Amino acid sequence: MRKAVVLLSGGLNSATTLAIARRDGFEVFALTANYGQRHQVEIEFARQIAEQFGVRKHSIVEFNLKQFGGSALTADIDVPKNRSLTKMEQEIPVTYVPARNTILLSFAIAWAEVLGSADIFTGVNAVDYSGYPDCRPEYIAAFETMANLATKAGVEGNKLTIHTPLINLTKADIIKLGTELGVDYSLTLTCYEPSTSGAACGECDSCILRLKGFSEAGVKDPTNYQSQAAAM
Amino acid sequence: MRKAVVLLSGGLNSATTLAIARRDGFEVFALTANYGQRHQVEIEFARQIAEQFGVRKHSIVEFNLKQFGGSALTADIDVPKNRSLTKMEQEIPVTYVPARNTILLSFAIAWAEVLGSADIFTGVNAVDYSGYPDCRPEYIAAFETMANLATKAGVEGNKLTIHTPLINLTKADIIKLGTELGVDYSLTLTCYEPSTSGAACGECDSCILRLKGFSEAGVKDPTNYQSQAAAM
Repeated sequence: MRKAVVLLSGGLNSATTLAIARRDGFEVFALTANYGQRHQVEIEFARQIAEQFGVRKHSIVEFNLKQFGGSALTADIDVPKNRSLTKMEQEIPVTYVPARNTILLSFAIAWAEVLGSADIFTGVNAVDYSGYPDCRPEYIAAFETMANLATKAGVEGNKLTIHTPLINLTKADIIKLGTELGVDYSLTLTCYEPSTSGAACGECDSCILRLKGFSEAGVKDPTNYQSQAAAM
Repeated sequence: MRKAVVLLSGGLNSATTLAIARRDGFEVFALTANYGQRHQVEIEFARQIAEQFGVRKHSIVEFNLKQFGGSALTADIDVPKNRSLTKMEQEIPVTYVPARNTILLSFAIAWAEVLGSADIFTGVNAVDYSGYPDCRPEYIAAFETMANLATKAGVEGNKLTIHTPLINLTKADIIKLGTELGVDYSLTLTCYEPSTSGAACGECDSCILRLKGFSEAGVKDPTNYQSQAAAM
């Protein structure tokens, strides 16, 4: 059984990615980051998803991006609410966390190398996303090239692959695929500013894209939303 | 005054790199990692170097690579001693820490982006080094390419540069240059397995390369060595 390191945030995309890695026969080592994010409750969701899919090991890596700040997710900056899809497409929002995916993938290749794994999975998506630069295919390709020069594994010919099975799917397609694979989306948290118990706001970019995805997929969103409007 | 993020380990190379960044007129933000390394006392050395060179800010980023292990610096694996230079050239040693430089540079680009800095300095060296893949010019070039695709700064045309002023110098040349720039090498720690007070073993690869460098540079090594033989 081949080992894979799967980045698991506790969100919809990473839960679906984990399901895909399991479907494809990988023994999964799930990696979640506690980086001082506003929506830290997502880590509890990640734990439940990891348990549901019977991962071999679930590691939480801890570091503090609050010490740098610069994002609505790690500093005292308001999370934008009720933005239109057009607006989302126009700019990189303040919820962008500088270099976050690069840091996460760096920890993933570190762990993969120690495990003797050549396969890393991440749920980045370049269709229904928030305009983050580190979700684009050209970024992932450049990271993979770099990773193979960075590591002993890469140098010795055990080529690392960064798998991004969702990168070209719409949110609706991701939800349909995950539903087929048995993902329990009630165990996922998408919201940037949930309540302490994990109820979603229904108004941040991330909630809006999630709601749109479930609607287009024709699947009922099991999320516990704080606002009645979103829950309809 | 342009801002630069300088990776500062507390070692000889990074201290010299910091001196170069200051010489070149950068306002320096020094970044040191506490990653669970065996030679954690190096962080105290980094603090003193940062103070000597009047950095604008010195941040310590904390994470635990012991949770992955896989290296003599982060796991219960013996640090090799008294290896010949020929032996060092033949293989990547067990002191290699998987993806360490990638993780460190990732934090550096995160901080740089928040600061509005486009300049990152690292003291990697590809001449008198220990065969680590993530010290080679081709790795640094690939990291820089990736970083410019990963970040909002890169996408918006504020191109990030990874400066590696030491990459093609011998250890002797680094020491001569640092001495000219006023680096106090008694404030640097090179050893992989120092005593708790910071006395160097004189026998690990890193000490051997340092001793050779000082000898070839004709400069007295101010290091406090545990062994008499090394100190001669």
